Amino acid sequence: MSSRWIYGFDALDAASERCGDDWDTVRGLLGGKGANLADMTRLEIPVPPGFTITSEACNAFLDSGEILPEGLTNELTMALRQVEQMTGKIFGDPANPLLLSCRSGAKFSMPGMMDTVLNIGLNDEVADGIADIFGDRHFALDSYRRLIQMFSTVVMGIPDEPFEDTLRGFREKREVENDGDLPIEDLESIVERFLKVFRNHTGRDFPSDPMEQLTMAVEAVFRSWNGRRAYAYRHAAGIDHDLGTAVNVQTMVFGNLGPDSATGVAVSRNATTGEPKIDGDFLMNAQGEDVVAGIRQTSTIEDLGRLMPEQHSELLRYAQILERHYTDMQDIEFTIESGKMWLLQTRDGKRTAQAAVRIAVDLVSDGIITKDEALMRVSPEQVEFFLHPQFDSDAKKIAVSRGRRLTQGLNVSPGAAVGVAAFDADLAEKWATERNDAVILVRPETKPDDVHGMLASAGVLTSSGGRTSHAALVARQFGKPAVVGAREVDLDLEARTMTVGPHVVKEGDWISIDGTTGEVFLDRIETSLPEIDDPWLMGVLSWADDVRDLDVWTNADYPADAEKAAKFGANGIGLCRTEHMFFDAARLPIVQGMIMASTETERLEALAELLPLQRSDFAGLFRAMDDKRVIIRLLDPPLHEFLPDRHDLIRKSTDLKIQLMNASNLQEVNALVREIEETEHILSRVESLHESNPMLGLRGVRLALLMPEIPEMQIRAIFEAALIVLDEGLTPRVGIMIPLASEASELLPMRDIMDRVAEEVLGDRADELDYEFGSMIETPRAAVTAGSLAESAEFFSFGTNDLTQMTFGISRDDAEKAFLLDYLNLGVLATNPFNTLDRLGVGTLIRSATEAGRATRPGIHVGICGEHGGDPASIALCDEIGLDYVSCSPLRVPVARLAAAQAVLNRPNRATEHLEPHRDLAEGVVADAR
Amino acid sequence: MSSRWIYGFDALDAASERCGDDWDTVRGLLGGKGANLADMTRLEIPVPPGFTITSEACNAFLDSGEILPEGLTNELTMALRQVEQMTGKIFGDPANPLLLSCRSGAKFSMPGMMDTVLNIGLNDEVADGIADIFGDRHFALDSYRRLIQMFSTVVMGIPDEPFEDTLRGFREKREVENDGDLPIEDLESIVERFLKVFRNHTGRDFPSDPMEQLTMAVEAVFRSWNGRRAYAYRHAAGIDHDLGTAVNVQTMVFGNLGPDSATGVAVSRNATTGEPKIDGDFLMNAQGEDVVAGIRQTSTIEDLGRLMPEQHSELLRYAQILERHYTDMQDIEFTIESGKMWLLQTRDGKRTAQAAVRIAVDLVSDGIITKDEALMRVSPEQVEFFLHPQFDSDAKKIAVSRGRRLTQGLNVSPGAAVGVAAFDADLAEKWATERNDAVILVRPETKPDDVHGMLASAGVLTSSGGRTSHAALVARQFGKPAVVGAREVDLDLEARTMTVGPHVVKEGDWISIDGTTGEVFLDRIETSLPEIDDPWLMGVLSWADDVRDLDVWTNADYPADAEKAAKFGANGIGLCRTEHMFFDAARLPIVQGMIMASTETERLEALAELLPLQRSDFAGLFRAMDDKRVIIRLLDPPLHEFLPDRHDLIRKSTDLKIQLMNASNLQEVNALVREIEETEHILSRVESLHESNPMLGLRGVRLALLMPEIPEMQIRAIFEAALIVLDEGLTPRVGIMIPLASEASELLPMRDIMDRVAEEVLGDRADELDYEFGSMIETPRAAVTAGSLAESAEFFSFGTNDLTQMTFGISRDDAEKAFLLDYLNLGVLATNPFNTLDRLGVGTLIRSATEAGRATRPGIHVGICGEHGGDPASIALCDEIGLDYVSCSPLRVPVARLAAAQAVLNRPNRATEHLEPHRDLAEGVVADAR
Repeated sequence: MSSRWIYGFDALDAASERCGDDWDTVRGLLGGKGANLADMTRLEIPVPPGFTITSEACNAFLDSGEILPEGLTNELTMALRQVEQMTGKIFGDPANPLLLSCRSGAKFSMPGMMDTVLNIGLNDEVADGIADIFGDRHFALDSYRRLIQMFSTVVMGIPDEPFEDTLRGFREKREVENDGDLPIEDLESIVERFLKVFRNHTGRDFPSDPMEQLTMAVEAVFRSWNGRRAYAYRHAAGIDHDLGTAVNVQTMVFGNLGPDSATGVAVSRNATTGEPKIDGDFLMNAQGEDVVAGIRQTSTIEDLGRLMPEQHSELLRYAQILERHYTDMQDIEFTIESGKMWLLQTRDGKRTAQAAVRIAVDLVSDGIITKDEALMRVSPEQVEFFLHPQFDSDAKKIAVSRGRRLTQGLNVSPGAAVGVAAFDADLAEKWATERNDAVILVRPETKPDDVHGMLASAGVLTSSGGRTSHAALVARQFGKPAVVGAREVDLDLEARTMTVGPHVVKEGDWISIDGTTGEVFLDRIETSLPEIDDPWLMGVLSWADDVRDLDVWTNADYPADAEKAAKFGANGIGLCRTEHMFFDAARLPIVQGMIMASTETERLEALAELLPLQRSDFAGLFRAMDDKRVIIRLLDPPLHEFLPDRHDLIRKSTDLKIQLMNASNLQEVNALVREIEETEHILSRVESLHESNPMLGLRGVRLALLMPEIPEMQIRAIFEAALIVLDEGLTPRVGIMIPLASEASELLPMRDIMDRVAEEVLGDRADELDYEFGSMIETPRAAVTAGSLAESAEFFSFGTNDLTQMTFGISRDDAEKAFLLDYLNLGVLATNPFNTLDRLGVGTLIRSATEAGRATRPGIHVGICGEHGGDPASIALCDEIGLDYVSCSPLRVPVARLAAAQAVLNRPNRATEHLEPHRDLAEGVVADAR
Repeated sequence: MSSRWIYGFDALDAASERCGDDWDTVRGLLGGKGANLADMTRLEIPVPPGFTITSEACNAFLDSGEILPEGLTNELTMALRQVEQMTGKIFGDPANPLLLSCRSGAKFSMPGMMDTVLNIGLNDEVADGIADIFGDRHFALDSYRRLIQMFSTVVMGIPDEPFEDTLRGFREKREVENDGDLPIEDLESIVERFLKVFRNHTGRDFPSDPMEQLTMAVEAVFRSWNGRRAYAYRHAAGIDHDLGTAVNVQTMVFGNLGPDSATGVAVSRNATTGEPKIDGDFLMNAQGEDVVAGIRQTSTIEDLGRLMPEQHSELLRYAQILERHYTDMQDIEFTIESGKMWLLQTRDGKRTAQAAVRIAVDLVSDGIITKDEALMRVSPEQVEFFLHPQFDSDAKKIAVSRGRRLTQGLNVSPGAAVGVAAFDADLAEKWATERNDAVILVRPETKPDDVHGMLASAGVLTSSGGRTSHAALVARQFGKPAVVGAREVDLDLEARTMTVGPHVVKEGDWISIDGTTGEVFLDRIETSLPEIDDPWLMGVLSWADDVRDLDVWTNADYPADAEKAAKFGANGIGLCRTEHMFFDAARLPIVQGMIMASTETERLEALAELLPLQRSDFAGLFRAMDDKRVIIRLLDPPLHEFLPDRHDLIRKSTDLKIQLMNASNLQEVNALVREIEETEHILSRVESLHESNPMLGLRGVRLALLMPEIPEMQIRAIFEAALIVLDEGLTPRVGIMIPLASEASELLPMRDIMDRVAEEVLGDRADELDYEFGSMIETPRAAVTAGSLAESAEFFSFGTNDLTQMTFGISRDDAEKAFLLDYLNLGVLATNPFNTLDRLGVGTLIRSATEAGRATRPGIHVGICGEHGGDPASIALCDEIGLDYVSCSPLRVPVARLAAAQAVLNRPNRATEHLEPHRDLAEGVVADAR
């Protein structure tokens, strides 16, 4: 059976048996769409009969230099014979013709990336036959011209323009908007012209043999697997290029056979809000592509209930069956042909972040999935989306009052986006990457070719299209705020302007769009961070909290950040960067005074001035994180960072000297000389602090050892703050963390200072305060010698930014400019190690350091801070290694909570017995796009 | 027995039994000197009777707040009683007085660092008694005044000046040079004055009770263990501060009792050349300190043969016994008291590097030690010393012909040294460390207080003293070139000048000294590197080659270096830094052109120009290393290193602009504008290449991946050179090494280039050439992922400089200035990790990377290059880890050969059965200095 190339939709059992009853293998063989069509057939859902040509056939074809594999043609004939028997129609028989569609369907969904040919089986005679049978010559000719056009472009690679130009010419002549409104005689002329275009471009006649049409269409779909667009998509999505695509050949059904015909798409729950109510669009007497194209105004599924109540309830029933079967919200394509309901496709529906969360929670309430499954249904990116900026409501009111609101379209993908308008995808991408501009892509509608521009943009605005248009689908998928179908927007692609009423927006002007409300504004509107008060999200995150092993802490330097993070669920502060407090405008002069101090006394005076300021900073953090650990890292950066830039000083000094040459009076000379002296004094200190590789220089604990008065001041401020907060009846829990250690003997003097200052400040009250001493693990040596560091450190925090820099020997400051992006493009590195923890290198060090630390001090508390703490893949690695916590920026805290739970659920040895028995099948459902 | 505090010199068996017959423990208990005195006593060598107070007593004394431990006083009385019985003299009995010396003696030799008191037991009455008994009042008074002076300074801490001033006063009055020439009446006055000085400073009388003298002296020696000088010495020498010192109390014998008395020191072999012939100095009718002080002109041991033949042959016999017993050349202190020979001390003698080597070889010939032992007798530093610069013989001839040779002294420590004259130790140290000057320390003579200045100096010159003077001993020990006893040198410490005949050298002027010949020159004389043709050294190194497992290669960038290294025994080139060839003045403009190229064509043209130059470089290396591996590292540094400095360019541009403001004619303006444009063009390229952390930036393989035409040119030049050399009938063995990789996928494209260029250049002849592809391991990540790097790399070379930088996160360029020296001073780091491989951190990475590399590719060739490759401690670590080779600079090759052998011999599991049975005792012999 190994060379069976074709499976009928009713042959799922045979395919499944061949695949060892493994659904994933079935999907590989039949493609996601083919597998689902067979699955639906088994569920007795009315699916138009058809069959699937396997992805193995595709690979055999591509591997052999595009020769159909032996036996395929024969199997094709047999499969066709079966479909003829099931439908009672005959392929190519004008008296009773069977028409077929031919669609790609790979294992993983690649929306719009590959090819489809409809109405196969039509030729002059069959078209006449159909006209007779249905008594509808208009329909027959329209179907025929569609076949010729699709076959020409998809199978033969003829450009679309001559066909579209022809259609436009007739529409303009007849002054109609839709091709469907053209009279029969026009359609006859159009068919003739199309056949001529075909001849002109190919040098042969359009194939009138239906079998030849079908074979050529199948080959074209196979070939499309290696098309440029599909290749690029797979590259971006990380899909294996060797999988190949299956081809689904299916009986055509027609939603355009008259008033008892219709076609549409429905989602079993609302894709924007997640509300548990069927939603969708349909068109009476139309073909499927008309719905998606967004040219005709669609009706809602509610309207279907009024217009065709029987079919409506049938659809509801099927949607429910499919949702239960696939355990997820379904996106269903249906056609009603002369009153008979057909389902053409089902797949897990795309949805907004909000909808994803609500649907996951509701599916649990409905008993369809478990909480664990629900946690896997929401992606960390979707949680992140809840934290996307929203327009500041006051700013929006002002904009409205000033008449800056241009229009309102469909709110298909929520969130606020502000950017310069770009009117094509290439320009959007160019501006976004080269100029680093925030861009709003504005298009009449979008096509698969535009995806790169959509991805590069902050948001998408289209003037046509509906809730299920390409723009809406893609924007939702990638979490881009989008407004579609803003019909008042008049885009002039020649003049590069967008006109809305009296307002003219030039390309490059700033606009703002609100994907949550559908509003479009002129200029920039201020955004603010949201609260997370969505009850479903709160529910999912609390389930995540029950599952996860990693604690989630936050990096926070200010009380306000700490409060925000606590609201987002942070259970402690893993990193307070004390130097950020030093950069405060009011404090910087004191810090500079400390650095420029020429005597010990001067330095101590400056430090004494800083102490009360730091103390009040720390007290604020302790209050915001009552009874939660607050890890304060002592001063880390090199001192020169607090002084003016060396080059600025050189330039200033040079400028002053030139001014001095031209000075006109003694007073001016004196003033300039004084200023020059001052500048040169600072410059000389800056130069004495200059290092050729400051990343590897005098900072962190090194500086602390050479100027112990600095850590002493900070530690004193910490303990004094803790006492104040203790006296307020709260419970501060202090962690004092040493940066950049690479040797146990660097920690000991710091620990001594801490112990001494604790004694001095706390005295008898030391027992009342919970405080710990810990070390960053930022240098590879610290990681390698972690066992001895743990002798004095009571906790470890991996500073993964620095650890990555030193482990790779890559300076982040320079690398992305200099070569790292090239590395990613060349494929030398698969991921940017500054975004996602490098498992093989840095990960290995973290793992062995954790083990060594625990061997020395069982139960030592170990976590990571740094940007990786909010990255889901990195969080999964931390879970795998068995760290105690991750610490990330406040905004990433909810993301990290979910990611940490998913890490647990994804553990290979995680028990799965409590999950629903159909889970494997459910997870397998990732169907192709239309 | 655990509280026995005192052991007589005849009680070695008891002490040994207590110490479990472990010689090392015996030495800990009795000190090196005490243990040896007991050992000599057992060998029936005539040693003046005495006893040792243990180091345990010292520690008990120091730990208890300076109270002598219980029982000690009683034991002291008993021990004294025994000595009285053995000598037949009575302590404190004017009629038959016993006089004692009291000397420190710790486990490890600390020459001159602790205290000695002689002539204990003298008081007014005993002095009178001695005068009567010996009929020599002069001797009695001189001994008495010495006791008072030593007791005052050593025990009571009174400054030496009042005593020395008194003596000088009398010498000047009598116009004599030596104190010994003063008449008896002067000595009486001197004793009186000394007693008065004592009273004035202490407020009490000089203790006339001999027992009180002895007790106080013992306590003073105990206390001296914690003296500033001793503490600093131990800190520098790495000796444990907890050991404590033993005290040796010994019967005084006198070499100044008349014409049949003498005192001297002898070495059993020549300490300068190693010649197997007894050598030394003695003085008739003198005390030991007179020999060392270098005030009186000493006689040689040959003279002793003429003057006292019986005692001379006795000395020879004892020297031979002791040498055989201790299996090493002995440094013996002897006194002949009225014809009776006494040995006061023996110890392994200090020696020059040349002597060390020859003695080791001769001891093997004499059957006294094995070859393995001989290898352990020579230190790597001593081998290094053979490679110290020597004066260029032509340069020296010219200096002589121009009258620049000032004088000739004793050639006590060989080698050439050039530096500025400094007339005291503090200044020498200051200039050497703060100004980084080469310094020659010039002193009348040196004392232990001067050691820090000697260590900081390039060489030492003294105007007095002999071959066994302090200056000579210390200089030999530390391998410093030294000339002593240059009596024509007249040093005026007030005027800070040194006058030699007509020549006046001011402090800070340049001088040159030749420790090999004893010559002293004005000004700087050019030095050159020696050949190593010393037959004994060649012998030792060839024994080392038989023992060692590590191969020794060299780092060489030029054919001349490679040839030199091959002569020194290098078995390959582990690192050729190709960029050094780029810095050649003739090539730099081409390299700059390549970097500044605005088109691909321009760059390729510049590379084409470089190719033949590189080809001829490589051919030279292959010729010099015929049939040995030559590993060529492709271009490593960042490109900006080949361009002018950024600040220089900014300054130049600013200067030109100021000139332009003042330009007087159009021609000048045009020229300036052109120059400014050019400068700014280069500046803009330099700025585009600027990185904030270049160490972690765009260099090495990163650059190669972005500009593959550079490695391609280099690889082509390598293969073309190999073909040329192959055609000459030689056997080039090529290694192509990629710098800075941290990921397997960085190596693959480089390997592809190599394979392709090999194909293009070698064609059919590929089989004739042995070539390999390898990787530096310089980043921690490379070390951690070495297993996957080994999939394409056929060899590894650890770049330990960079690996140390990145593992510690320390930039070598900055660190020593910024904090590393502070770290060493503060004791945060015990050794500078850039000098000696960091075992715990970097060493761990090297070990695991080597294991991982071998797991992937069994037998992968692994070594280190970088400066650690020539450091003995680092070589030992490489041996322990099991690397295949070390590669070091040509001059370090002989050092590395020995160090690699010693590493094998020091392995803990190394079989020792073939060694002499007395080896343990022999190794234990490290006696104190006088």
